[in-house]
Amino acid sequence: MRALVKEQRAPGAAVREVPLPQPGPGELLVRVEAASVCGTDVHIERWDQWAEENFGPTPMIFGHEMAGVVVGHGQGAGRIPLGETVAAETHIVDWTCYQCRTGRAHICRSLRILGVHLPGTFAQYVVIPEMNAWVYEGLSPEIAALQEPLGNAVHATFVEEIAGQTVAVLGCGPIGLMSIAVARMAGARRVFATDINPERLEMAGQMGADLLLEASDDIVERLRAETDGNGVDVVLEMSGAEAALHQGLAALTNGGRISLLGTHNTPVTLDLSQEVIFKGIRLYGITGRRMFDTWYRTTALLEEGLDLRPIITHRLPLTDYASAFDLVASGHAGKIVLLPQEE
Amino acid sequence: MRALVKEQRAPGAAVREVPLPQPGPGELLVRVEAASVCGTDVHIERWDQWAEENFGPTPMIFGHEMAGVVVGHGQGAGRIPLGETVAAETHIVDWTCYQCRTGRAHICRSLRILGVHLPGTFAQYVVIPEMNAWVYEGLSPEIAALQEPLGNAVHATFVEEIAGQTVAVLGCGPIGLMSIAVARMAGARRVFATDINPERLEMAGQMGADLLLEASDDIVERLRAETDGNGVDVVLEMSGAEAALHQGLAALTNGGRISLLGTHNTPVTLDLSQEVIFKGIRLYGITGRRMFDTWYRTTALLEEGLDLRPIITHRLPLTDYASAFDLVASGHAGKIVLLPQEE
Amino acid sequence: MRALVKEQRAPGAAVREVPLPQPGPGELLVRVEAASVCGTDVHIERWDQWAEENFGPTPMIFGHEMAGVVVGHGQGAGRIPLGETVAAETHIVDWTCYQCRTGRAHICRSLRILGVHLPGTFAQYVVIPEMNAWVYEGLSPEIAALQEPLGNAVHATFVEEIAGQTVAVLGCGPIGLMSIAVARMAGARRVFATDINPERLEMAGQMGADLLLEASDDIVERLRAETDGNGVDVVLEMSGAEAALHQGLAALTNGGRISLLGTHNTPVTLDLSQEVIFKGIRLYGITGRRMFDTWYRTTALLEEGLDLRPIITHRLPLTDYASAFDLVASGHAGKIVLLPQEE
Amino acid sequence: MRALVKEQRAPGAAVREVPLPQPGPGELLVRVEAASVCGTDVHIERWDQWAEENFGPTPMIFGHEMAGVVVGHGQGAGRIPLGETVAAETHIVDWTCYQCRTGRAHICRSLRILGVHLPGTFAQYVVIPEMNAWVYEGLSPEIAALQEPLGNAVHATFVEEIAGQTVAVLGCGPIGLMSIAVARMAGARRVFATDINPERLEMAGQMGADLLLEASDDIVERLRAETDGNGVDVVLEMSGAEAALHQGLAALTNGGRISLLGTHNTPVTLDLSQEVIFKGIRLYGITGRRMFDTWYRTTALLEEGLDLRPIITHRLPLTDYASAFDLVASGHAGKIVLLPQEE
Repeated sequence: MRALVKEQRAPGAAVREVPLPQPGPGELLVRVEAASVCGTDVHIERWDQWAEENFGPTPMIFGHEMAGVVVGHGQGAGRIPLGETVAAETHIVDWTCYQCRTGRAHICRSLRILGVHLPGTFAQYVVIPEMNAWVYEGLSPEIAALQEPLGNAVHATFVEEIAGQTVAVLGCGPIGLMSIAVARMAGARRVFATDINPERLEMAGQMGADLLLEASDDIVERLRAETDGNGVDVVLEMSGAEAALHQGLAALTNGGRISLLGTHNTPVTLDLSQEVIFKGIRLYGITGRRMFDTWYRTTALLEEGLDLRPIITHRLPLTDYASAFDLVASGHAGKIVLLPQEE
Repeated sequence: MRALVKEQRAPGAAVREVPLPQPGPGELLVRVEAASVCGTDVHIERWDQWAEENFGPTPMIFGHEMAGVVVGHGQGAGRIPLGETVAAETHIVDWTCYQCRTGRAHICRSLRILGVHLPGTFAQYVVIPEMNAWVYEGLSPEIAALQEPLGNAVHATFVEEIAGQTVAVLGCGPIGLMSIAVARMAGARRVFATDINPERLEMAGQMGADLLLEASDDIVERLRAETDGNGVDVVLEMSGAEAALHQGLAALTNGGRISLLGTHNTPVTLDLSQEVIFKGIRLYGITGRRMFDTWYRTTALLEEGLDLRPIITHRLPLTDYASAFDLVASGHAGKIVLLPQEE
Repeated sequence: MRALVKEQRAPGAAVREVPLPQPGPGELLVRVEAASVCGTDVHIERWDQWAEENFGPTPMIFGHEMAGVVVGHGQGAGRIPLGETVAAETHIVDWTCYQCRTGRAHICRSLRILGVHLPGTFAQYVVIPEMNAWVYEGLSPEIAALQEPLGNAVHATFVEEIAGQTVAVLGCGPIGLMSIAVARMAGARRVFATDINPERLEMAGQMGADLLLEASDDIVERLRAETDGNGVDVVLEMSGAEAALHQGLAALTNGGRISLLGTHNTPVTLDLSQEVIFKGIRLYGITGRRMFDTWYRTTALLEEGLDLRPIITHRLPLTDYASAFDLVASGHAGKIVLLPQEE
Repeated sequence: MRALVKEQRAPGAAVREVPLPQPGPGELLVRVEAASVCGTDVHIERWDQWAEENFGPTPMIFGHEMAGVVVGHGQGAGRIPLGETVAAETHIVDWTCYQCRTGRAHICRSLRILGVHLPGTFAQYVVIPEMNAWVYEGLSPEIAALQEPLGNAVHATFVEEIAGQTVAVLGCGPIGLMSIAVARMAGARRVFATDINPERLEMAGQMGADLLLEASDDIVERLRAETDGNGVDVVLEMSGAEAALHQGLAALTNGGRISLLGTHNTPVTLDLSQEVIFKGIRLYGITGRRMFDTWYRTTALLEEGLDLRPIITHRLPLTDYASAFDLVASGHAGKIVLLPQEE
């Protein structure tokens, strides 16, 4: 089969013909119809420090977001019939550790991630545990593949109740954009969006943000003014930028909460007393999706009419992977979907 | 001033000229622009057992839902300026008991209710504690008066998170209708509405219900079919009918929750083991509104565009009170608003 | 092997020699060192309506509480080594339904219970899924077998925070007694115990209850007097008696909560408005144990020194099963442990 | 009356004769029987940057922890009779802002603190709002004065459920020591205590810590070893030391929570991705006490037998204030209680 392989621990990747993988016990073989590109994939392709420290043994196929069709069963698998359409929960967990047995499998003590520690989805076929397959209906493959990052947005947004709350989304990359729509659908009082990139802010407006703010020094003052001086109830930090973090903490009302999802490549410096403690703020580190509470909610939102199509800016055959990575790195793309079955 | 007075502990009421009330320490005098009719008021006018056991000493003005304008300050009051428009939180509490000091003032140990234990709002003027006045902007008086019962709906609906949940609203009186809209705006996955009255079901559709069901024996089967056999996540019991209660419990998914707001005039008989215990269900007794969390959320929903106008079917001068009570009792009305300043 | 078999759908049971069971895929063979007797087992032995409606096809071994040693692995099992000591979570679940995938496997949509729907633990050996085995250390088999019912007590007690709360435990059978100790260890402010049986009240005192009350009409008044007139914060209804339920609801403070664990054989009649709704009370139907949050907490309490020995009043060989059931039915026993390996 | 006055915005303070304060509307005059010394008071006496930025206009009496007797009523006050013993909730709030109306008055938008923004308790008499007086019974004044800092410990410890959890308390100053006892009484599985000061660790043992660890590099490894490799469930950061913060985050199990109460005088540098986000950790900024949920719990713990006497190392007349501040600054004291009525 055709697959995008990370061959060396250095920048680059290559499309290769590789053997079809075989599903082991409890696993499914899935024909990949769509595989969307995540920032993580760009880290792997460009090969930065995070990739050096985290990516498994090369050569290995990468990519993790996907939707496809079940075409094979390993021993003991079969609950999901052949021909069913599935997306992948990309956190491969042991189901027996302390975390897995107490409702937080997504941060399993021996967590492995598809396309990072195990062969991924930038390929015509992929093997996943049947427990990780999420059956969907009525979605196009490209939207279905986005359920995984949408789950990140849902997890970050719904970590506490959102209805009736004022919300600031800091950073309008794909997950930030999704969280705007999620907060809007779940009855947020106001949704404020910030970014440094006007193209992204425009997309934020399309996703339902009530107010678009170019990231700059007076955002805090503006957010206070828009909330009767109280500050916002909820900050969703999606940028991974230290400046945004400080703005978010300053803009929060006393007793508010912030979800930290954007990953920071460098340490941040905080005045914990003033920014967090004296304000009685709650910070939530957010990674992955709750298995599978978040998936049920994600499905519900899509059923209710959540429309992710404005976020998808490019659809490319797998062989055009280089353009895809360049586009993501340029900041001039929303979500890019690779199509492994197309030439 | 003109007021609707319950003169005797027997059916009936009368419009009378009575002295203008004087605000005491910490109280406001409010000119009533709109006072909507609640089922409680009908109990008082018709004089049933509940009224006999609960209504304060006669003669007394009744009515509690209202919106108006601040026209006088008692000693120590003044945070809210003259001329401001306010609605009333109708639970008059002591602020110092165990409940009031632990975030549940609405079930204060020495709770008194406006228009039940203290002179009410079916009058040209009413006195309320300044702490109970909710300042609003940008609403017509008739909608503003509905914030109080809307708060009941918000409280019942938001007692746990609602986004992504399937919801059955049992009973489409005014508060049931409001809760349909609230659940819809807060991202419920599906909202099912049941009633025995086709007129009310039609209003339920206007408020955003996804499926309208005439209350009958097969509702449980239908709700299971609509939810992949799981049953619904949330039941909002707004009818006070025992049959509906059993249907709701049967329709709930294992581990679901039910809010009990509709009051029951007669005891109900439950198979606790099968209906509640073995299913791991949570039941919430709901009365009043959280002070003032619920009011903030209610305001947020109205700001976001929640439209209660379809619920208001009649607007009448206070002097037409008899028609109002007859209409409510007939079941052919939604919400009726009395206008004390009109002749 | 020797086993206690329910042979016919009628009162009675018999010790028989039966073939050693074989563990299937993912299952363990466990040598049973101790199997304690639950009220459910008495229902099965005496054969009441609940048994008629729920017990699986006869002949079948019953019993479910147990501790033992792993002596065989089915295909794919092996995480838990041979020789390890384990107790059994008795709810056999599918791990793939809506409930299992949203953190409430104990109320799985296709729940089966050991010794009710599947061959049980009143035998020298039993087969259980490896996922249902809870490895323990440092406990005697008889105490280890009690972890399952202790889990019920922990689940009922910890459904909301208990520290600093006043607690009334209604019904001092084994699970009620355990919950007294659990509440005490978790920092309850006061623990009140009620029962109609003076022997049980004496045991309640041994388990740490602060006040022992014979169930009678003035309990409500007494509990209010002991709580500054507020009523208790928490009721743990362990009796399944309707009179206790009404007392519990009346004794609760406004906004309090009640865990319903005692099963009711007949319907109960409630004044929902007065007993639940106007007081803003939360009711929790409690069955089983959270898988496996509750087991971690149960283990923690045992490690901290929770002593269940006073509850165990009898230890009998399996062949003395008839005495065991008579003792439980008489009300003159605490917990009885059967020892299948003894003659 | 005699009072300790901060006269200038510079190091130092002085005992002076000042006029007896008069209670205003809704206020009480309280004769101070005991006033304990908090770290905040040392900041004010030594006059550091925090004091410069936060302390109100000089000259002003400082000190805030106290217990005393009601000896006068301002207009409208009187719910609490003369002669009653009270402690002070030291957060003076407006009761009408967004925070106060949504159950978080302790972080009121216009918060003022006794002895920081308003005249304090290092005096023979103090005026406080009647709403801020907490009536107590059966406690000595010196223990009663400690209810305020004990409330900080209770708030930090109980922000999520603690029963059955492993807990690391970082920093064994008075509030850290109290939180050890609180966690112990509320059923924590293990309580680990760390400090750099052996005297404080010894006190930690007296308060019930299971394991005492001198703060050094291998604490993280040790805490993992003591928790089956999982890491601790709960960290209570009481030191305000950056090194401890990093140790706490590293020692937390995935999905654990940390309460941040120790205030940091300088910014901290965090690797948010590794220390917080990928581990799915929750951080809680903790300040003050919930009004008045925390006070009820604090009272409950004292009733249950929580013994704070080992923490009090010195009792001094107010005139010995200089020794008190030197002792606190030296680190060789636990809690010091000043006695304003003694010469």
